Amino acid sequence: MFDVEKIRADFPILSRKVNDRPLVYLDNGASAQKPQVVIDAITTGYAHEYANVHRGLHYLSNLATDKYEAVRGKVAQFLNAPSADEIVFTSGTTEAINLVSYAWAAPRFKAGDEVVLSILEHHANIVPWHFLRERLGVVLKWVDCDANGDLDPQAVIDAMGPRTKLVAITQMSNVTGTVVDVASICHAARARGVASLVDGSQAAVHMPVDVAAMGCDFYAITGHKLYGPSGSGAIFIQRDRMAEMRPFLGGGDMIREVSRDTVIYNDAPMKFEAGTPGIIQQIGMGVALDYMMGIGMEAIAAHEAQLRDYTRDRLAGLNWLNVQGNSASKGAIFSFTLQGAAHAHDISTILDKRGIAVRAGTHCAMPLMERLGVGATCRASFAMYNTQAEADKLVEALEFCHELFG
Amino acid sequence: MFDVEKIRADFPILSRKVNDRPLVYLDNGASAQKPQVVIDAITTGYAHEYANVHRGLHYLSNLATDKYEAVRGKVAQFLNAPSADEIVFTSGTTEAINLVSYAWAAPRFKAGDEVVLSILEHHANIVPWHFLRERLGVVLKWVDCDANGDLDPQAVIDAMGPRTKLVAITQMSNVTGTVVDVASICHAARARGVASLVDGSQAAVHMPVDVAAMGCDFYAITGHKLYGPSGSGAIFIQRDRMAEMRPFLGGGDMIREVSRDTVIYNDAPMKFEAGTPGIIQQIGMGVALDYMMGIGMEAIAAHEAQLRDYTRDRLAGLNWLNVQGNSASKGAIFSFTLQGAAHAHDISTILDKRGIAVRAGTHCAMPLMERLGVGATCRASFAMYNTQAEADKLVEALEFCHELFG
Repeated sequence: MFDVEKIRADFPILSRKVNDRPLVYLDNGASAQKPQVVIDAITTGYAHEYANVHRGLHYLSNLATDKYEAVRGKVAQFLNAPSADEIVFTSGTTEAINLVSYAWAAPRFKAGDEVVLSILEHHANIVPWHFLRERLGVVLKWVDCDANGDLDPQAVIDAMGPRTKLVAITQMSNVTGTVVDVASICHAARARGVASLVDGSQAAVHMPVDVAAMGCDFYAITGHKLYGPSGSGAIFIQRDRMAEMRPFLGGGDMIREVSRDTVIYNDAPMKFEAGTPGIIQQIGMGVALDYMMGIGMEAIAAHEAQLRDYTRDRLAGLNWLNVQGNSASKGAIFSFTLQGAAHAHDISTILDKRGIAVRAGTHCAMPLMERLGVGATCRASFAMYNTQAEADKLVEALEFCHELFG
Repeated sequence: MFDVEKIRADFPILSRKVNDRPLVYLDNGASAQKPQVVIDAITTGYAHEYANVHRGLHYLSNLATDKYEAVRGKVAQFLNAPSADEIVFTSGTTEAINLVSYAWAAPRFKAGDEVVLSILEHHANIVPWHFLRERLGVVLKWVDCDANGDLDPQAVIDAMGPRTKLVAITQMSNVTGTVVDVASICHAARARGVASLVDGSQAAVHMPVDVAAMGCDFYAITGHKLYGPSGSGAIFIQRDRMAEMRPFLGGGDMIREVSRDTVIYNDAPMKFEAGTPGIIQQIGMGVALDYMMGIGMEAIAAHEAQLRDYTRDRLAGLNWLNVQGNSASKGAIFSFTLQGAAHAHDISTILDKRGIAVRAGTHCAMPLMERLGVGATCRASFAMYNTQAEADKLVEALEFCHELFG
């Protein structure tokens, strides 16, 4: 039984005040808050169980290594990946997608080869491909969304041509909350011999993910959005794709032998993890994933769907508010502007005075903002610990803004 | 006044037991333990002050951003860098050196261009250059140390030829503790138009560092060895070199504008920091640097010099022990083998049973191990919180090993 008040009690920051008002944290699309179990795991790790991993033979090193390596299996379980060996730790989705760009794509793509992207993408899933455009002459093929923010999977499939080597698509827009039918896209890509990368940075926080059923080659997640520590993350890489990758970062752990003249690399996934990793961060991410799986991703998704429906209805009652994207299956992310003079940044500042944390700007998704025809929006993004009462506070504060600027 | 017992009391893990013995932590070369102030900063960060940085306009985001960005100045102060704008945050020295390899070296080096390295280097300062050898035909020029583990700076200078583009040198060996006169090397390099990179992963922990006086172009540090969190670090990049670098990781924060067809990058240092950074880790590293500077790097160095001298004398009394490298100015790092049958890994395991944490293996420095003619060593590496009494325990335990295997 999903109990939002019980969950809220697990997050110490949610009981604090901001500007003398109870914090209403609606900036989860940028980063989520951390439950006490994650904070405790970090504290315990540093205060009682810390050492470097993999290369020690002493008690603390073995303890840290066991805890760290166990997270690989937790990530595999969370994503339903066939094997923990198909999980590579990263510092987040940005590093993960750059890993794919540098280690898999760059050595095999030629001028004129194509990457298919949707207009919904976050810069983390755009700029690494712009690098290949700038450096190799790779062509970016963009697929548009409709006026509702929906992305037709068939349009993505139709964009794949004989020169397409990769389709790189988000499963959930961080601006509109649009959920993309990535499974249809990935299956079609595989049938055509095209690799598929799914940016799961938002989606994995809000719904069950099954990479095996999805049929993707790469699926990236971000620990700090998953209620885990900053600097944590991972990517699922399908075994055959991993075998095609050259190393990315060079250093300790990713090698088997180094001499003056030669270097022999370690087996995957270690081949792609150089140097001392984010030991305590990844252990913390493991605890966060356990926490989420303990609640149940279906239950989290159901709670957030209620929040989405409730908030959508309430915002729809504000006829001076323009919400960007209104897909039926969208996540509980609302980007909006107010008709009239108020700039998104001003709105954000006024909401903050009432304890409500939202983001304002272009949300690292400038091509989508251009497509939507907006310079900047405010974004209220919900998480499992948010409530209908918080949605009400958002609406009240927006009404106050409207009166102020109206 | 340096008070080691007062310092020890700041590190909670040092009061724990391992295998029913008080922990004697001598694996600091791999990673250092964390003082309570660092742990508290992390806890406070996550429990009361957490949000994503840079892109928010709400209270928590501004608070986190202020704390995070302030660390840039602390790193600059710690290294005596001319400007905080010459500090780029990384996840550690491994990522830092890869940044230099990918963003500065790779686009400008041609087949036959040379990187001068010393045989003392850690894999983190070898493998990124092997990548350039494998991918571009860059030539690695190795400079040997002498039988004592010393590196003659003139030999490094003499190795620079007309095709040399970079000299990449550690300031302190993680195996022998050898301290290298990097200032002489960097000044000579600059006079020849050769760039210089100093791996400060070990040295910055144990001595005052002054990158301005040193005259280096790149100086990398590792937060988790500096009593800070795992996943933290930074690199000083001299302003002119930074201007020559292309972006490395692509994503949010490192761009100014992104469209379907173009991308305009942000100003340095942000240009080299993609995506959500290690927010709380870097804040924790800042606290660790403040802690060290509060004690004083000169005082830390003096304490560790006493520890080195004391331990060196005691180990010299064990005529069945072979210590690798005995440079007069070395740091308090001792790598050794026992004459006879005992393997380094067995020694490490026996020491662990007595609560003494040392490392055994090749210490991510295989070319040096080959040079020294050893397959694996045990390594006892000291930090500011270690004591002469702990050195005595190490010696007693080694005597026990000798009796066992002798």
